[in-house]
Amino acid sequence: MVTLKEIAQLCDVSPTTVSNVINGKAKTSEETRQKILQVIDETGFKPNIMAKGLRIKSSRTIAIIAEDLAQFTSPPIIESIMEACEQKDYRVIVHNLRLYDRWQDTWYNKKGDYNSVISPVINDILSAQIDGVIYVAGHARVIKTFNDNFELPVVMCYAFSESSDIPSVVIDDEKGSYDMVSYLISKGHKRIGFVGGRMDNLHTVQRLMGYQKAMFENGLLFDPNLVYYGDWSRQSGYDGASVLIKQNVSAFFGIADRMTGGIYDYLYENEIEIGRGISVASFDNENISEYFKPRLTTTELPLREIGKRSAELLLNKLEKKNADGIEESSDESEDSNGIDVIKVPCRLVIRDSVTSL
Amino acid sequence: MVTLKEIAQLCDVSPTTVSNVINGKAKTSEETRQKILQVIDETGFKPNIMAKGLRIKSSRTIAIIAEDLAQFTSPPIIESIMEACEQKDYRVIVHNLRLYDRWQDTWYNKKGDYNSVISPVINDILSAQIDGVIYVAGHARVIKTFNDNFELPVVMCYAFSESSDIPSVVIDDEKGSYDMVSYLISKGHKRIGFVGGRMDNLHTVQRLMGYQKAMFENGLLFDPNLVYYGDWSRQSGYDGASVLIKQNVSAFFGIADRMTGGIYDYLYENEIEIGRGISVASFDNENISEYFKPRLTTTELPLREIGKRSAELLLNKLEKKNADGIEESSDESEDSNGIDVIKVPCRLVIRDSVTSL
Repeated sequence: MVTLKEIAQLCDVSPTTVSNVINGKAKTSEETRQKILQVIDETGFKPNIMAKGLRIKSSRTIAIIAEDLAQFTSPPIIESIMEACEQKDYRVIVHNLRLYDRWQDTWYNKKGDYNSVISPVINDILSAQIDGVIYVAGHARVIKTFNDNFELPVVMCYAFSESSDIPSVVIDDEKGSYDMVSYLISKGHKRIGFVGGRMDNLHTVQRLMGYQKAMFENGLLFDPNLVYYGDWSRQSGYDGASVLIKQNVSAFFGIADRMTGGIYDYLYENEIEIGRGISVASFDNENISEYFKPRLTTTELPLREIGKRSAELLLNKLEKKNADGIEESSDESEDSNGIDVIKVPCRLVIRDSVTSL
Repeated sequence: MVTLKEIAQLCDVSPTTVSNVINGKAKTSEETRQKILQVIDETGFKPNIMAKGLRIKSSRTIAIIAEDLAQFTSPPIIESIMEACEQKDYRVIVHNLRLYDRWQDTWYNKKGDYNSVISPVINDILSAQIDGVIYVAGHARVIKTFNDNFELPVVMCYAFSESSDIPSVVIDDEKGSYDMVSYLISKGHKRIGFVGGRMDNLHTVQRLMGYQKAMFENGLLFDPNLVYYGDWSRQSGYDGASVLIKQNVSAFFGIADRMTGGIYDYLYENEIEIGRGISVASFDNENISEYFKPRLTTTELPLREIGKRSAELLLNKLEKKNADGIEESSDESEDSNGIDVIKVPCRLVIRDSVTSL
């Protein structure tokens, strides 16, 4: 097989010039560029991607670290990151930690287990020719995997970082919940049962905050007895409904479609007609929600959008770095700790499970 | 940063010996091995994965080419391939063609579009240090991407190859359908409406064959008027139900859960009670099927299993190649054209939508 060096000799230029042309760098005259491309074409030369990484500074390759590819949130995020990278001619390598696959939802308090899985991946990324990293979390929390001195640019997607060097792109849980509860209130509902996930989960905390703000702004008392903490499972939705129904609620707000499936189960079992006797709203807009009877009114997670924004953030950073040789100073808004957080709004999906009181 | 060569000098051995130790090859004395590992530890040497690929024959890295990561079938397949590879200490690189994302279901008759996407991926794989490839299709068909002279071992997953060098691991559509229709017949159903996908789709063809065999073996006439070809969409399930209901069927067999959702829609709309007035069975066991009311009796796709079998096939091939320097001759059964096809059985998931007539 012909080598890059031989191409250079055939064209009477330096190997660096050939490399620049292959990598689209505009430092070569058009005449030389055409000549080199012609010789590459004639000789059937295939640039060796791996060797290329060793020779030039930027490999135009980013790594995605997914906490679990099979979480329903991951594929749309990853797919839109890939789309954005393709448009800018970046390659993407996907690492999959398989955290839920290994340990279901028990892993996130086991630091040792997590470290045993993330460490080899970080080593891989650091010893390969990778320009930057997007970390795709399985659920929102503060992730401390990368310290301030981490040597590559990182963007945190669907979770929060604790480093001022690492921006986060998350969904706006609080606003999404606020919008849904405001919608329920606009339909006349005042006693709204809130079926949350685990109490210390950030999605739960922020969605409850949105609920409370909507109640407050409408001059409605917040009754803590209307809050039930489940564990995201369908069974816990069922249990929540059976508890809250005694509080004389006219509507349920389950904050995950799968859990809301359990609320439906309870109402079906007790022959309480959904959308007439009682209204039900939810969060996620998973594909299951379209198959509920009646079809579920829910809140769409902007998964493709947070993927796209994460990719844009990282690629802009890399392009600026390439152009200037210096790190970009971000234009994005910062929170009180100086950490960039981009919150992407959710969209209400109005179907048939909420009606006027 | 310290290099592999410097490690070799410090240990007074050849760079090849250091490389062998790093890659776990058992050609070195235990004493030398320990010494090298100690020096690696003390110097903080990180083997450069990419450079490593250039020096040694096997990179212990395989590539997955997914037709679309966001198809519901892909994540479980990919996750179990990764699990199997991890157990054997192989790295996995994921390429995602995003075919459905780009062109929905119109792409598979457009050879040019497909080639524009697959070609750069194949080039990437050939110029990187990859030991083998698993192609994860979005639906079953004969895939001609790799010719007989393709330079790497390939396993075709969830589709068929046309090369005797490339084994296929697929789900047993025909047997899965045969089992479900036999179950319906055992419940007293004789007029069973079959709502298929597109007529020329291999899943449709094989599932219809299973339906016909079950009818034949039970001495029941096959009435072609009971077959409706949809397009996998929910709407086409609705349309199929509205046509077949006039044929006096006592049960529907929709061959994809999403499409069967449309059968449910039709029956709901016409107040025909599912599981009493009429039975409904399906295929896929997507997560939506658990949320149907009544919960859907369906056929589980063995997605994790075909992923695992594909990985085992490829890794065994690679291990044998490494050990012997020759290609393995397969033990698997071959079809009449000499192409290995492994069919993995599906499992019936009995829920509440089928009752005795």
